[in-house]
Amino acid sequence: MKGFVSFVGSGPGDPELLTLKAVDRLRRADAVLFDDLSAGPILNHARSGADLIGVGKRAGRPSPKQHHVSRLLVDYAQKGGRIVRLKSGDSGTFGRLEEETSALREAAIDFEIIPGVPSACAAAAAAGIPLTRRLTARRVQFITGHDVRGALPEDMNMAALADPLATTVVFMGQRTFPAFAHLLINHGLPPETPALLAEGISTPAQALHRMSVVQLAARLAESISDAPALILYGPLAETDDNTQRLSGPGTDVNVDGDHALWSEN
Amino acid sequence: MKGFVSFVGSGPGDPELLTLKAVDRLRRADAVLFDDLSAGPILNHARSGADLIGVGKRAGRPSPKQHHVSRLLVDYAQKGGRIVRLKSGDSGTFGRLEEETSALREAAIDFEIIPGVPSACAAAAAAGIPLTRRLTARRVQFITGHDVRGALPEDMNMAALADPLATTVVFMGQRTFPAFAHLLINHGLPPETPALLAEGISTPAQALHRMSVVQLAARLAESISDAPALILYGPLAETDDNTQRLSGPGTDVNVDGDHALWSEN
Repeated sequence: MKGFVSFVGSGPGDPELLTLKAVDRLRRADAVLFDDLSAGPILNHARSGADLIGVGKRAGRPSPKQHHVSRLLVDYAQKGGRIVRLKSGDSGTFGRLEEETSALREAAIDFEIIPGVPSACAAAAAAGIPLTRRLTARRVQFITGHDVRGALPEDMNMAALADPLATTVVFMGQRTFPAFAHLLINHGLPPETPALLAEGISTPAQALHRMSVVQLAARLAESISDAPALILYGPLAETDDNTQRLSGPGTDVNVDGDHALWSEN
Repeated sequence: MKGFVSFVGSGPGDPELLTLKAVDRLRRADAVLFDDLSAGPILNHARSGADLIGVGKRAGRPSPKQHHVSRLLVDYAQKGGRIVRLKSGDSGTFGRLEEETSALREAAIDFEIIPGVPSACAAAAAAGIPLTRRLTARRVQFITGHDVRGALPEDMNMAALADPLATTVVFMGQRTFPAFAHLLINHGLPPETPALLAEGISTPAQALHRMSVVQLAARLAESISDAPALILYGPLAETDDNTQRLSGPGTDVNVDGDHALWSEN
């Protein structure tokens, strides 16, 4: 009797940003395989007695090879029962989902995919900005800042990425951003394009830093935080009247981990 | 005593894809202003006695002007209490969020933004595919298929959109897709690029149709469904070994509304 695997997007980190369906699957799981970013209070939804297995994939640190993770998932599923494969953010976005679904298909193991809130959406929400805007930001794109070697990916579509009329969110891009920003500017992105560095999104450690693309490149060339972070750039990353007063360009804003609340008062 | 507004992403339609935070805000709301796509069973989470106000924005139908919606939101908030502004999918993605936050800031009304599961993520999950893949789909982009006039937007970045190495999701794009596909192919997108038409995502009426970009353009030139739909194209929209066997290229697949479950058995 083979098991059943639920791929579950855990959202950005705040356990309140789990979906009802994610909570249901966690409660019923016999085993949960989780990444570093989907650990912590989210795992409290699992029943006591469930196996909790960290598979520790995290940018910039030694982590299990993908085929080991896929192998482990198949092994657990073949023992039977209900398995949750927890992936941070949305399950199908930059999570190497396909390698794992292919391994399950080869092993004839049934599965379902439950989408989650992407950390990009949570970062924008925390900053009080939308990802799209009529006329000036009708396209939003998500990219990774590094390839499997940890370097800036080759053959990037620079016409797409240097477009000042799109919102771009870079996942896992802190280390490569200085080189990437240089490329963007060479391809016509204005250096003063607004940018947002969002660390520890939706967790108590959340910090939002607003500055221009060229300022952010200079900052990240000097130091990089240990916290997982997203970089967002484009017309909507600009400070509006209100957030500007709270933060000022190029300065740091700490936003309460529970929710982002902008007040005039 | 002014009210407080929570912008809440309702997810794609399945009430189980609401976040815990969304449910909490709905339960505590004195008034809920909702779009057509976030209506239905999702509103069952509101307490009895809460005002439920449909503001009926939906592609292809007459709907209230945006400034009327913003005005209504401010009027409700000025009466006091807790207001939920429910937006389908993610609250910051193609929801005209900024117009409404600006109106609240002008009226000095506090608000928070709660992100949700984008319908694009739910459509891919239902089809059993990821939105990104190492090497061949490292970029994912969301666009709208029409501008405020209901026509195909001008000044689109065709180098970005005709990129065969990206996954592209078109929101509200059924009517303009035949013209858009023509442009894409003229700009180098292979006509046989796999596409997915996802109708009624995550609802009991969900239907997934897989075919090539050129086949989808021909289909939509002939008839368009009334159901809200997303179009996804790119390398990952192709049928894999398993789904191909279930569906066959160019044929329709009806997927159970509760979850997408692909089985080898």
